[in-house]
Amino acid sequence: MTLSLSSIAEQLGLEFTGEDKQITGVNTLEKAGPGDVSFLVNPKYARLLETTSAGAVLTGPDYADRVQSALISSNVYLDLAKIVKLFEVPQGRMSGTSELSCVHESADIAESATVYPFAFIGENARIGEDTVIFPGCYVGESTVIGRECIVYPNAVLMGGCELGDNSIIQPGAVIGADGFGYAQTPFGHMKIPQIGKVCLGDNVEIGANTAVDRAALDVTSIGPGTKIDNLVQVGHNVQMGKHCLVVGQVGIGGSTTIGDNVVLGGQAGIADNVTIGSNVKVGGQAGISNRLDDGSVVSGSPSMPYSTYLKAMGVCAPKLPDLFKKVKKLEKRLATLEEAQGDDHDKT
Amino acid sequence: MTLSLSSIAEQLGLEFTGEDKQITGVNTLEKAGPGDVSFLVNPKYARLLETTSAGAVLTGPDYADRVQSALISSNVYLDLAKIVKLFEVPQGRMSGTSELSCVHESADIAESATVYPFAFIGENARIGEDTVIFPGCYVGESTVIGRECIVYPNAVLMGGCELGDNSIIQPGAVIGADGFGYAQTPFGHMKIPQIGKVCLGDNVEIGANTAVDRAALDVTSIGPGTKIDNLVQVGHNVQMGKHCLVVGQVGIGGSTTIGDNVVLGGQAGIADNVTIGSNVKVGGQAGISNRLDDGSVVSGSPSMPYSTYLKAMGVCAPKLPDLFKKVKKLEKRLATLEEAQGDDHDKT
Amino acid sequence: MTLSLSSIAEQLGLEFTGEDKQITGVNTLEKAGPGDVSFLVNPKYARLLETTSAGAVLTGPDYADRVQSALISSNVYLDLAKIVKLFEVPQGRMSGTSELSCVHESADIAESATVYPFAFIGENARIGEDTVIFPGCYVGESTVIGRECIVYPNAVLMGGCELGDNSIIQPGAVIGADGFGYAQTPFGHMKIPQIGKVCLGDNVEIGANTAVDRAALDVTSIGPGTKIDNLVQVGHNVQMGKHCLVVGQVGIGGSTTIGDNVVLGGQAGIADNVTIGSNVKVGGQAGISNRLDDGSVVSGSPSMPYSTYLKAMGVCAPKLPDLFKKVKKLEKRLATLEEAQGDDHDKT
Repeated sequence: MTLSLSSIAEQLGLEFTGEDKQITGVNTLEKAGPGDVSFLVNPKYARLLETTSAGAVLTGPDYADRVQSALISSNVYLDLAKIVKLFEVPQGRMSGTSELSCVHESADIAESATVYPFAFIGENARIGEDTVIFPGCYVGESTVIGRECIVYPNAVLMGGCELGDNSIIQPGAVIGADGFGYAQTPFGHMKIPQIGKVCLGDNVEIGANTAVDRAALDVTSIGPGTKIDNLVQVGHNVQMGKHCLVVGQVGIGGSTTIGDNVVLGGQAGIADNVTIGSNVKVGGQAGISNRLDDGSVVSGSPSMPYSTYLKAMGVCAPKLPDLFKKVKKLEKRLATLEEAQGDDHDKT
Repeated sequence: MTLSLSSIAEQLGLEFTGEDKQITGVNTLEKAGPGDVSFLVNPKYARLLETTSAGAVLTGPDYADRVQSALISSNVYLDLAKIVKLFEVPQGRMSGTSELSCVHESADIAESATVYPFAFIGENARIGEDTVIFPGCYVGESTVIGRECIVYPNAVLMGGCELGDNSIIQPGAVIGADGFGYAQTPFGHMKIPQIGKVCLGDNVEIGANTAVDRAALDVTSIGPGTKIDNLVQVGHNVQMGKHCLVVGQVGIGGSTTIGDNVVLGGQAGIADNVTIGSNVKVGGQAGISNRLDDGSVVSGSPSMPYSTYLKAMGVCAPKLPDLFKKVKKLEKRLATLEEAQGDDHDKT
Repeated sequence: MTLSLSSIAEQLGLEFTGEDKQITGVNTLEKAGPGDVSFLVNPKYARLLETTSAGAVLTGPDYADRVQSALISSNVYLDLAKIVKLFEVPQGRMSGTSELSCVHESADIAESATVYPFAFIGENARIGEDTVIFPGCYVGESTVIGRECIVYPNAVLMGGCELGDNSIIQPGAVIGADGFGYAQTPFGHMKIPQIGKVCLGDNVEIGANTAVDRAALDVTSIGPGTKIDNLVQVGHNVQMGKHCLVVGQVGIGGSTTIGDNVVLGGQAGIADNVTIGSNVKVGGQAGISNRLDDGSVVSGSPSMPYSTYLKAMGVCAPKLPDLFKKVKKLEKRLATLEEAQGDDHDKT
């Protein structure tokens, strides 16, 4: 793919400075060559502008005069996303329904959809227009997948689940496995059959090898625009809102409710039955077992306000051995004083 | 599926109050309609009894008179499990061995077993009666699966492993991958071939995308009735007892021994070569690197008794910045006193 | 497989003591029978030498006279690896390219390679000599796999990735899924297409259900000889050096750089954009968000030097409730003294 800098600028509605040139790709400032567009967001890396070989640099107006050719943007990441999209070569090369797939005769596959070899599509499943099902995927009976979705290799969508339009399921993700629910009996743990389902809104992305469990009854629900990273665990009956970001290896316990625009840092753990408001930020490895109000910013396990965490766990915790010594010394000095005081009193 | 309330009561040996009616499903108090049975366990939600549309409610005797029709139970979760079982529609619709599977001619598949398309069954593998192997599963050579097991899509059972009866393997789980064992050499890490196996007892459940490694030599063993959630890591040569519950994303290091009826909270980590007794409870995100005696209840990383943890990490840790300030002030006040004391002594 | 003790000793260049005998396997001191070689590394288990039924024991010179037959080694783990290798029966029994696989006509598969049923090999992919691709694997277009690699069942290698020689990909691992990158817009998170790739060096091992994301642009890189355990998350654009050991469930954020010979303990989390030197050791469950110099040994979340961690979090943290009480008492005693002092001054 070759595009002129001027045509890129035009497509994105951006101004460009310097000479027009042919662009064949996108790369970092260090790795870009004369045919690449690169980008600068963080002023910390501005020194790389001196040494980059990039043919053009996408950046804010402040840096435009420091490079030969610039695309001037007020939202570099957004425009970067758009430029990369121009040069993207999607994964996979096939179209249509492969004869090596296994599609139930009652399944409703849009004509423009793609079903790769070794994909299994169950009874009454529905797959929308332009959706792609990669090899080794399992789509259970009555599962409904919207249009323009991508289900990458070996993802599993158990029966009865629903995916909105423009959803992306990364490889090996499992949607709709049984939740972890047992009744205690004198003879051991008796499985409570999990007969609910999972509903994902439009524009949801689910990471590689992530698991989103089906509800015990009712629905596990992920709101539109929410993005979930790899190896995340979402328990049964979780209700997650819109436009959340859930970073890798987060665990969310059953029946927990999460608002909109929530960010959960990597490896954070949320207990069962917790309510988390909207616009909450949870730090990496944090442990949450109590309600968090809208706008909370917390870290630590157990969690505390982020500003407290920085001082308590970041600054104070490593100095605990010193503090213990200090207090011990204080006790001695105080005892000495008390003794002296006693002596003085005795004297008086 | 439609069942009368009276027939459900009869099948479960429960008393029922109110009028008999036709029941078609089970749902929560909020979501249940007139054709549903719902349930109340936690008194906290008793107010929902006033507003629910449920046709009948399964609950303890104390609440029976607050609803039109009640199923009266002394173990609501257990009876809920049984009722849900009545209405469960199992995943999957096929039976028999699919022509699109690949089964080695020496494999011994029970006639009542189901092998879906794209499942691979290796040499001398054995699959018991009524067991179901979903699409994309791999069953390695000489692996033995008991009767009435379910192996969900894309699960992998490497060669030489054994699964007891009534086991459930959720999608994407991997049983019998190589343990993480290397000999250090001047030229790098040299792999110690992992030639042991994995044995799962009867009634074991393994969660989605969980990994249970084969032993280096000998056996990695999970006792009967133990239930393991999603994305859990069980290292090579782990010996786990009966009726344990292992919540999502727990990690268990190699050669660790765990007793019976142990509960490991989500994201807890157990180091290598640790011995954990029976009836132990480990909190979420706890870190265990030392022996735990029978009946221990611990939390925190590194772990401490749960009651200590609540005070030390829950109450005290966030107040550390205050404590440090207090101690600093104490030092000053003490120095002032000491000085005054010195002055007094000088005076005397 | 049966080998005489003398031939084992000869193949490994080891001395042996006691009588020669036929050996058919390897097992632990507890489990070994008269036909097995066993081994002793840790002196802690030396008492088992009295009771073992092992036909021979591989051990250092100090213990050789305590058993009937010994193989004497100066590096027991290394020689154990070699002996186990002699008795190893590799997983899988097939060879050649199965007619039940789906291989693109442009793919270049070495004649000595094995491609199992239900494996998918995309356009222009290349697979080296003696490499084995197990059932259910996906090898995307233009992905290049070296020689003598093993790709276990249901592993996914997305398009454009590269694996060095002698690499091992455990079941369910995902190499080259999209990194987690979005531009923030008023309408939600807009995906930045991930058009980079993943390169693994020679002798790399990737654990079961581990995910290594493709770079946004450029390359996610894992150096030769590095071994990664199960359920690990490696973010996009991570640069990891040679001969590292990454234990189960570790999470490594995007664009983080890691040196050579680094050991990351289980469940440790490394934030985005962090630089970690060589020969660093990170404890289990540690949380790293700042640069670590060469040779650092750290633990805790947030991390601190390991020796500090042992005292601060291991010894002091559980005593915090006591410390808080002590300080409260100190304050009271000090107030009493101050009052008395005031009185005394009043008196004078």
